Amino acid sequence: MNKQNRRKFLKQTMQTGFAGVGASMLLSSCGQDVEADSQVDNVITMNGKDRFLVKPAHALPITATFIDEISHDIPHQNWGEAEWDLDFRYMQKMGINTVILIRAGYRKFITYPSAYLLSKGCYMPTVDLLDMFLRLADKYSMHFYFGLYDSGAYWDTGDLYKEVEHNKPVIEEVWAKYGSKYKSFAGWYISGEISRKTKGSIRAFHELGNMCKSMSNDLPTFISPWIDGKKAVMASSNSLSKSDAVSVRQHEEDWSEIFDGIKDVIDACAFQDGHIDYNELDAFFSVNKQLADRYGIACWTNAETFDRDMPIKFMPIKFDKLRLKLEAAKRANYEKAITFEFSHFMSPQSAYKQAGHLYDRYVQFMNS
Amino acid sequence: MNKQNRRKFLKQTMQTGFAGVGASMLLSSCGQDVEADSQVDNVITMNGKDRFLVKPAHALPITATFIDEISHDIPHQNWGEAEWDLDFRYMQKMGINTVILIRAGYRKFITYPSAYLLSKGCYMPTVDLLDMFLRLADKYSMHFYFGLYDSGAYWDTGDLYKEVEHNKPVIEEVWAKYGSKYKSFAGWYISGEISRKTKGSIRAFHELGNMCKSMSNDLPTFISPWIDGKKAVMASSNSLSKSDAVSVRQHEEDWSEIFDGIKDVIDACAFQDGHIDYNELDAFFSVNKQLADRYGIACWTNAETFDRDMPIKFMPIKFDKLRLKLEAAKRANYEKAITFEFSHFMSPQSAYKQAGHLYDRYVQFMNS
Amino acid sequence: MNKQNRRKFLKQTMQTGFAGVGASMLLSSCGQDVEADSQVDNVITMNGKDRFLVKPAHALPITATFIDEISHDIPHQNWGEAEWDLDFRYMQKMGINTVILIRAGYRKFITYPSAYLLSKGCYMPTVDLLDMFLRLADKYSMHFYFGLYDSGAYWDTGDLYKEVEHNKPVIEEVWAKYGSKYKSFAGWYISGEISRKTKGSIRAFHELGNMCKSMSNDLPTFISPWIDGKKAVMASSNSLSKSDAVSVRQHEEDWSEIFDGIKDVIDACAFQDGHIDYNELDAFFSVNKQLADRYGIACWTNAETFDRDMPIKFMPIKFDKLRLKLEAAKRANYEKAITFEFSHFMSPQSAYKQAGHLYDRYVQFMNS
Repeated sequence: MNKQNRRKFLKQTMQTGFAGVGASMLLSSCGQDVEADSQVDNVITMNGKDRFLVKPAHALPITATFIDEISHDIPHQNWGEAEWDLDFRYMQKMGINTVILIRAGYRKFITYPSAYLLSKGCYMPTVDLLDMFLRLADKYSMHFYFGLYDSGAYWDTGDLYKEVEHNKPVIEEVWAKYGSKYKSFAGWYISGEISRKTKGSIRAFHELGNMCKSMSNDLPTFISPWIDGKKAVMASSNSLSKSDAVSVRQHEEDWSEIFDGIKDVIDACAFQDGHIDYNELDAFFSVNKQLADRYGIACWTNAETFDRDMPIKFMPIKFDKLRLKLEAAKRANYEKAITFEFSHFMSPQSAYKQAGHLYDRYVQFMNS
Repeated sequence: MNKQNRRKFLKQTMQTGFAGVGASMLLSSCGQDVEADSQVDNVITMNGKDRFLVKPAHALPITATFIDEISHDIPHQNWGEAEWDLDFRYMQKMGINTVILIRAGYRKFITYPSAYLLSKGCYMPTVDLLDMFLRLADKYSMHFYFGLYDSGAYWDTGDLYKEVEHNKPVIEEVWAKYGSKYKSFAGWYISGEISRKTKGSIRAFHELGNMCKSMSNDLPTFISPWIDGKKAVMASSNSLSKSDAVSVRQHEEDWSEIFDGIKDVIDACAFQDGHIDYNELDAFFSVNKQLADRYGIACWTNAETFDRDMPIKFMPIKFDKLRLKLEAAKRANYEKAITFEFSHFMSPQSAYKQAGHLYDRYVQFMNS
Repeated sequence: MNKQNRRKFLKQTMQTGFAGVGASMLLSSCGQDVEADSQVDNVITMNGKDRFLVKPAHALPITATFIDEISHDIPHQNWGEAEWDLDFRYMQKMGINTVILIRAGYRKFITYPSAYLLSKGCYMPTVDLLDMFLRLADKYSMHFYFGLYDSGAYWDTGDLYKEVEHNKPVIEEVWAKYGSKYKSFAGWYISGEISRKTKGSIRAFHELGNMCKSMSNDLPTFISPWIDGKKAVMASSNSLSKSDAVSVRQHEEDWSEIFDGIKDVIDACAFQDGHIDYNELDAFFSVNKQLADRYGIACWTNAETFDRDMPIKFMPIKFDKLRLKLEAAKRANYEKAITFEFSHFMSPQSAYKQAGHLYDRYVQFMNS
């Protein structure tokens, strides 16, 4: 991405639902489907009584979400296209303008009938999820980012570079079949979830970012790594924290090296915000912003909407915790907040009813 | 069961909702309760848009379900008779013609006011669940299988034979009080969940099967063991797989011995399908079918509708995974698919909303 | 509390929803809000069919509940005031006359904008939950107990006494700002969750109880410790039981010493009922009642409405289990049943749908 393109891209990403278009739009109908509109509007009727002690202007609004199909550790909701269509409407109402497919596939389960991946032993999906998400993104005028395939090799062997080999044909076939067809196809998500320790990742990320950009006439790319903080433990582990949490200084040194190595092919970085404690947010966020600015990378936050502090892994987060994280992102002058993720943890139709209430609290607060 | 009876029984079990009666029946009313009909029919309205990449004819339909009262490790739904009545209607709509009480009781919690078990210190249940399930099975013209009592001795000591002693009086009183009263009383489920390693089980299973059949004029019996595969770990464990997975060959040798020892008193075997990986399904299923055929035992699959791959133990399975398992059962010429279990993991009124969506996806796909 | 006050207090606590006001009140409207009334009444329509084998007169009714904000290990529901208002209505319908704030705050998350706790680095809450709960308790004529602040020091260091230092200013500011303002402010809950082993707790409990009572003109105080029984394991642990369960005799010796040390400033004790097995209930409950009588402390039960026996920590309990515990409390002549807690595990609007069914079963049974 040349400087002019990047400037345009950065500007685009800063359009936010609440800040950019005003709250009034939120309650107005989109005029597409009266019954669905009514359903969407009715969600936020049980509000209006709460007396807030804090102001919404201090929090960065969420304008993007991952779509967690194929899921790694979150139980599936078994939605069909009707439910996904409604979910995009809920997203739009809340100010979301960008959706990111978390990964094209995970091990043998894939989101679209990839000739290449099927030839490698992957299972035929029941429907073409990728095509469906792109149709919906077109319909709701959203930007769609395509998350690369994850073969599991990195998780099994620690070697991220093996994903390069698998993703070359994936990127080619996806661009040929979907990229040119849908106007919503807006960029690429390099889906390897690394932390500072995954240093071999520089070469892999560079090659993957380069492939994506050269294939797609320089469409933007981003990554969403995790901070190696005190809550960085496996979902299947009982431990709630990690004794050897990374220090802010070590984090800065390692990521300076990584950013320097990938800056020409990665346009944005959205660190996951859930592995550090709430009182550490400012320290890590300010370093992240300085680093991103130094290397010309857009600084986003991945505001996790699930709670890492509970024995059930995972349930929607308490609104106050989400608010604290979005306030820290605002203080650090972050440019965009994306979330992992709307459909399980923030949607009014989520199987977790706490998610719908989180939506209510968020919309009500942001409009207060 | 003599050969003629067994042939009749096998034929009966092969009547399947979708294959046997056609899809049109699914959407027609049962004419029993207009309001409930409307409720049941409304479940599958949000469909019709999805474009399937695969055909339903390649999957074996589910025609039976366990009823998981008393539950071992699945949180209770606290349903009364009204909810159970509605659930039987949902089951019927989906093509289920057989319900199996998972167990008469587990340790001190029991499903019916058994004079024998109460005298041994079991707790009086609030309602007579056994009577209720039989009334509902009669009402909806289903076959009911009674699952034997589980004292916990096997789990604590590894000795399955102790269950023989407890179940002799249970079988007697259940047959006397319920077996002759309800026309839906169709057979017995020998509820010990064994794997190939539980070899002492041959003697226990033989004695239990013999008791059931001699008491009830040779009503059919079945077992539902688990394959000692890579996902065979305790629900309370974090490990998601097992390093020393049984090989197909070892599985065949052990089960050949077991089947040979129980073939005269056990009429069907429904291996649980969730302990092996999806790419192992064909290998294990074809062996199971060969073995079952060799010893004249009907070969069913226990298609688990919960997901063993997630940190939350347990939530409803993703439809694609269920579809893969039912396709493998069809390829292996299995004769019937039962599921563990409808009410938590597949019912539109389940506390897990993912279950209702799994129902939608299944019905929509099977009718496509 | 002098003897006359204590007698009055004890009498008050024995007013129970079902026993005290009769079942008919349960189904009548409160006349405050027609739409909400209709919503509340509609909850229990799917009943009336069940044939009970046991009598409600043998179970102690639940008349109080904790309010689990700030939660320690239960995922948040993200309710606003509208949902809380409706929940108080549901509570009232079921016979609840007392609500207990589980704790004023936990570590850095607090329920009200405490000048003291904010100065110590706690986070500003989005709304003043304490004020809201007191307004609702006033509105629904309930008794409100304030649970003390929990800094986490006890959990981290085992030293309960550190909570005394934090709670002195908390008790002062809460009494000044809320205690005199709301007529529902009825007492104090000394929130340290100890077992018999926490012996240093005597000094801490005595000092905290004394502070509360001297500040508030002798309002009642209570504690809710856990029995160091076989299920006493951490929520994040997989083990479902504990090998070195406390014996009844050891329990009696230790608690005799504790009760003796706090009897002049603690008015009631509600042991948590979930750490012992169902067949141990009578043994422990009779000892608890004898001890409480000996030291002039009211004997309540904390009837847990979540299930400690399941892999998901935590889901609503099966009604039969709750019934067994309330029957044991009745047999032991306990004076009041409180629950942990209504809103997650027993409310018709809980995110756990099993909770609404537990409400149905409870109301239906208590009215049978």
